Amino acid sequence: MAEREKVRVAINGYGVIGKRVADAVALQHDMELAGVADVATDWRPRMATRKGYALYGATAEHAGAMRDAGLAVAGALDELLDTADLVVDCTPKRIAAQNVGIYRNRKLKFIVQGGEKHEVTGHSFVAEASYASAVGRDSTRVVSCNTTSIVRTLTALKNAGLLRRARGTLLRRATDPWESHLGGIMNTLVPEPGIPSHQGPDAQSVDPDLDVVTMAVKVPETLAHLHYWSVQLTRPAEKSEVVEAFGAASRIALIRNGDGLTALNAVTEMMADMGRPHDSLYEVALWEDMMRVEGDEAFYAYMVDNQAIVIPETVDAIRALIGNVCDARESIARTNAALGIGAVVHALGR
Amino acid sequence: MAEREKVRVAINGYGVIGKRVADAVALQHDMELAGVADVATDWRPRMATRKGYALYGATAEHAGAMRDAGLAVAGALDELLDTADLVVDCTPKRIAAQNVGIYRNRKLKFIVQGGEKHEVTGHSFVAEASYASAVGRDSTRVVSCNTTSIVRTLTALKNAGLLRRARGTLLRRATDPWESHLGGIMNTLVPEPGIPSHQGPDAQSVDPDLDVVTMAVKVPETLAHLHYWSVQLTRPAEKSEVVEAFGAASRIALIRNGDGLTALNAVTEMMADMGRPHDSLYEVALWEDMMRVEGDEAFYAYMVDNQAIVIPETVDAIRALIGNVCDARESIARTNAALGIGAVVHALGR
Amino acid sequence: MAEREKVRVAINGYGVIGKRVADAVALQHDMELAGVADVATDWRPRMATRKGYALYGATAEHAGAMRDAGLAVAGALDELLDTADLVVDCTPKRIAAQNVGIYRNRKLKFIVQGGEKHEVTGHSFVAEASYASAVGRDSTRVVSCNTTSIVRTLTALKNAGLLRRARGTLLRRATDPWESHLGGIMNTLVPEPGIPSHQGPDAQSVDPDLDVVTMAVKVPETLAHLHYWSVQLTRPAEKSEVVEAFGAASRIALIRNGDGLTALNAVTEMMADMGRPHDSLYEVALWEDMMRVEGDEAFYAYMVDNQAIVIPETVDAIRALIGNVCDARESIARTNAALGIGAVVHALGR
Amino acid sequence: MAEREKVRVAINGYGVIGKRVADAVALQHDMELAGVADVATDWRPRMATRKGYALYGATAEHAGAMRDAGLAVAGALDELLDTADLVVDCTPKRIAAQNVGIYRNRKLKFIVQGGEKHEVTGHSFVAEASYASAVGRDSTRVVSCNTTSIVRTLTALKNAGLLRRARGTLLRRATDPWESHLGGIMNTLVPEPGIPSHQGPDAQSVDPDLDVVTMAVKVPETLAHLHYWSVQLTRPAEKSEVVEAFGAASRIALIRNGDGLTALNAVTEMMADMGRPHDSLYEVALWEDMMRVEGDEAFYAYMVDNQAIVIPETVDAIRALIGNVCDARESIARTNAALGIGAVVHALGR
Repeated sequence: MAEREKVRVAINGYGVIGKRVADAVALQHDMELAGVADVATDWRPRMATRKGYALYGATAEHAGAMRDAGLAVAGALDELLDTADLVVDCTPKRIAAQNVGIYRNRKLKFIVQGGEKHEVTGHSFVAEASYASAVGRDSTRVVSCNTTSIVRTLTALKNAGLLRRARGTLLRRATDPWESHLGGIMNTLVPEPGIPSHQGPDAQSVDPDLDVVTMAVKVPETLAHLHYWSVQLTRPAEKSEVVEAFGAASRIALIRNGDGLTALNAVTEMMADMGRPHDSLYEVALWEDMMRVEGDEAFYAYMVDNQAIVIPETVDAIRALIGNVCDARESIARTNAALGIGAVVHALGR
Repeated sequence: MAEREKVRVAINGYGVIGKRVADAVALQHDMELAGVADVATDWRPRMATRKGYALYGATAEHAGAMRDAGLAVAGALDELLDTADLVVDCTPKRIAAQNVGIYRNRKLKFIVQGGEKHEVTGHSFVAEASYASAVGRDSTRVVSCNTTSIVRTLTALKNAGLLRRARGTLLRRATDPWESHLGGIMNTLVPEPGIPSHQGPDAQSVDPDLDVVTMAVKVPETLAHLHYWSVQLTRPAEKSEVVEAFGAASRIALIRNGDGLTALNAVTEMMADMGRPHDSLYEVALWEDMMRVEGDEAFYAYMVDNQAIVIPETVDAIRALIGNVCDARESIARTNAALGIGAVVHALGR
Repeated sequence: MAEREKVRVAINGYGVIGKRVADAVALQHDMELAGVADVATDWRPRMATRKGYALYGATAEHAGAMRDAGLAVAGALDELLDTADLVVDCTPKRIAAQNVGIYRNRKLKFIVQGGEKHEVTGHSFVAEASYASAVGRDSTRVVSCNTTSIVRTLTALKNAGLLRRARGTLLRRATDPWESHLGGIMNTLVPEPGIPSHQGPDAQSVDPDLDVVTMAVKVPETLAHLHYWSVQLTRPAEKSEVVEAFGAASRIALIRNGDGLTALNAVTEMMADMGRPHDSLYEVALWEDMMRVEGDEAFYAYMVDNQAIVIPETVDAIRALIGNVCDARESIARTNAALGIGAVVHALGR
Repeated sequence: MAEREKVRVAINGYGVIGKRVADAVALQHDMELAGVADVATDWRPRMATRKGYALYGATAEHAGAMRDAGLAVAGALDELLDTADLVVDCTPKRIAAQNVGIYRNRKLKFIVQGGEKHEVTGHSFVAEASYASAVGRDSTRVVSCNTTSIVRTLTALKNAGLLRRARGTLLRRATDPWESHLGGIMNTLVPEPGIPSHQGPDAQSVDPDLDVVTMAVKVPETLAHLHYWSVQLTRPAEKSEVVEAFGAASRIALIRNGDGLTALNAVTEMMADMGRPHDSLYEVALWEDMMRVEGDEAFYAYMVDNQAIVIPETVDAIRALIGNVCDARESIARTNAALGIGAVVHALGR
């Protein structure tokens, strides 16, 4: 494929992640959206056709049900895959595992999301950490929202030569807003039954060098995850060094409690004010003024928009697999420009 | 002022309502935004300047504080008012009452929001019910979100000759998302201490003919209000007649539980998918398939986005006071087109 | 069975309702608890044995699993039923329907809860409305928490000759506290898809004369239901007449917003302060000072503790089926005395 | 005062803490409740008189207002203090600071709660850590719920020679159930603006040797706090050693996720099933099976009932100040027996 041609991307699964990936792909100058496939027949796929996206049923039966529901359907998944250079699988966990066989049989490059295991593709992706090893591969796995944020932040410390070991507590939003009527927790906290939680090892699937242990707990809100970290540095450091390390990363936004960004909802509202679709916070939003560095220890907290953070990573993963952009920085820059990443810090005038 | 000239609108108060009015005014072909005034110095006014809105301090002192905080400030409220044909006051309750004197002294037309009493302007506004009597006036009050929805829906029934008396229970969201870190209720329900609640009489300030009684209760969520109604009709009717009456209104969206719009959050997500800024639902979203008409009684429920529903009304109120558009239907049509109102029903393919 | 002998009561299902019925039965002078049966092997049945209740497995297999978990098990359900005069089934919906066959084969009197249909027993029970027709029957169904409260309040108005027709909006707590980690709704409201909701017809299964229509919605809290009513009276009335009608009922507590009981949580805290087990509010707690009577209409709201309200009814239903107490008033008086019902009003000094 | 005489204890402030302290004091064989003072006139002080507690107004004016509200009032605070050997101040923060002057003038021994600063009394109290130094003093401060749990757990590790340094993340319930209608956070998380949070230094006010850093965040639930810890031990250890260290403490309950105690609400429900007043969890409930010990690091989580945990400490503090029980273990044993502490582990059959 020549550099000039646009990569044709299919999206299988038009849910929380799928619809955001579709919108993000549609914004890239070097990509075009081949279409989206799903199983629903209600208001949700209607929104896809309203945006002009070609809509496919996950199977011929689903396509038929969609037609019966009055939706404009372009066909079934098979037909969508015929027209695509690559497919991003955004279906629920168990379904995705089955789809992988279909993609392999077609020799179609594919990306799965963080719900799947590392073994499914043998490669786990975070742009700043593992882009190079993904270039030209047949498939990769974009790791989960929590893991993505961990790899982004610890890679920043590692790149600055500061990271020795990191211990984190992860407060996980109990459910996404769009399905908060279907299930969630109410007026309670639900610890993950196992310590450590799986995110630490999962981060190591991207970068085995990370010395990281996590504990996780579900909290009764729908907006975002919130992480607290105690990090042992390689040496006593100044706070400014740690801030600089994070500031040098491509997808960490340093925000300030002192600017009125005192809670998750305030940051979400700022994203809405910035006109971000779905109030998406693609960045890890790390509170600079709350951070404390004391001797060889750093303590800090950041917010993770679990619906949005993996979207730019997925876009980069597409370029890596296709292989026409070999430099992580180049892909990250394109993706960030198309999605307005970086604007947060700028918006705050610093 | 000639029809061709654009009305210059000042917004005093850049909060939940003020910022949405600013965005809506900026979208109207026959209006331009003179600027916005506020007292905050944090991330919030920064979003205004980011959009290119002229930012003013509520006083010279506030303008100074904003400048000290690094904001690009155009001046103080007085200067903003000098350049405007009309001001929309979106400040908190007690402040607005004081501002009215300032506007009157300047002989500047003004609009207050529903937190103020009817007596402040002597006129209460809902476009479909009281546009005509507002034309050319010096001031009006756009009634509150709850009252707006009541007047919209009961006017629709009245116009169809069906309304005898209406009894409603109003579930009020406890706080807005952007200030949900500052206060709200948790795992409880808080009845309004008085029955009936004030919304019934408030609706009568727009249309004294309405026979309406309301009871209200605060519920622990931030998304929207939800109203349940038992309406006695003037005669036994078919459900189709009632549906038709609501369908004929300009800002009622008939939605369907059977389309998957089974809860407040689903409707909000659909607004996000439609690209509405701040997920705004300007319409009263009334569940058509849940409605029951039995003899001379109608039972139904609808959702009210308390942050958005008064925005189109405010835009219409501007035109009414300026007086260059004398026909309610003409103003409503312009506003609806600019804000994409009507698209909801269309989006659902019905 | 002679009046002197104690009725031996078995409880099948030791969940939210079962454990409360067990405690209530244990407090009655004319009853004794034969034992409780369940399927769980975790901390929950341990609490039963801790109280000295004989614990049985729902089957021999369950009894075995309980033993393996270190619980002191008395045997399986069959053995429990052998020793009982009557069984109260408090198992989940689908299980209960199957159990009924077991009880019938044994010719054992039984009570099911409101999750079951009226047809399962052919009789629906609320002490003040249908005790007499239950006397000596083989079985009855204690109706659901919502329906119980509706029948209690509307029967009070009917007994005073005041009830013409009642229209209610029911705010339903989304889940019980003890299972709020397993599922519920978050930051949304979920309307029942059908209007009217089933509670109106269900109330008519107890008293076919009631003209009642209900609409229902799930709200994101765990404490209690809250009902709002618009009632058309048979004639214009004074508020004092309506208050008196409610005050004459045996299980309605008139509370006052002006006493600081301004929300569900305040009433729950008062129950805790009164030492009620599980903070149980057995009464319908109706806000006297919020009530409004206007001409021939009454408007009021009350709170329903969905975990507790059916407990005294179940105790009365036991006496009715056994048939040794033929007068509803006598049974209600015994139950109320044992559970401290009536103390609420007294506690408030009125 | 002879050992045989009962200490007469006054409680100033009958709120969340005051009413629980009153109940706990009433249960001690070596204490009697002189009475409680407050300012409220609503249902709350009514509950005190209902229990037979002598009720006093905080001032003569408050006493008068209480009388006007129909409450049986014994007099004003001055009169209550006249009859007491010691006063426990449970009033809100700012009020307590003023009260201290009154107590000192009277040369009355007093206890303040953790809202006050260490300097107010010069001594900070947790029974297992600082009983001895409180014996015979004029006053002490029972530290806050969070600090109490930290000192209890870290003292246990210290006593076993295992504690090197501890880093904790504290999830704080946003408001208490009884005032959850007055304020709280909704669908968001609110980080404490400063890292480290104050609880670390506060723990050092009890034991300056503790190397402890804390970070804190408010979460939208009302039940309890939840702490996550990463602790560096003095040496590599087995998990059994750490479990043993905690098990040896007098007020730590080792619970198991595998027993079904999988979330805060489950533990609360178990307390209700045990008949604990207000579902009080006096113990630090630490999940034994979730704990992980890896080399010289221990990771664990526990639940803190912020309304209950300081109650037994306050009872012990009374004995320490009075000085008739000089041994911490003796006082703890008496308090624990009276409150049923220790029963949790026993209830779980281990």
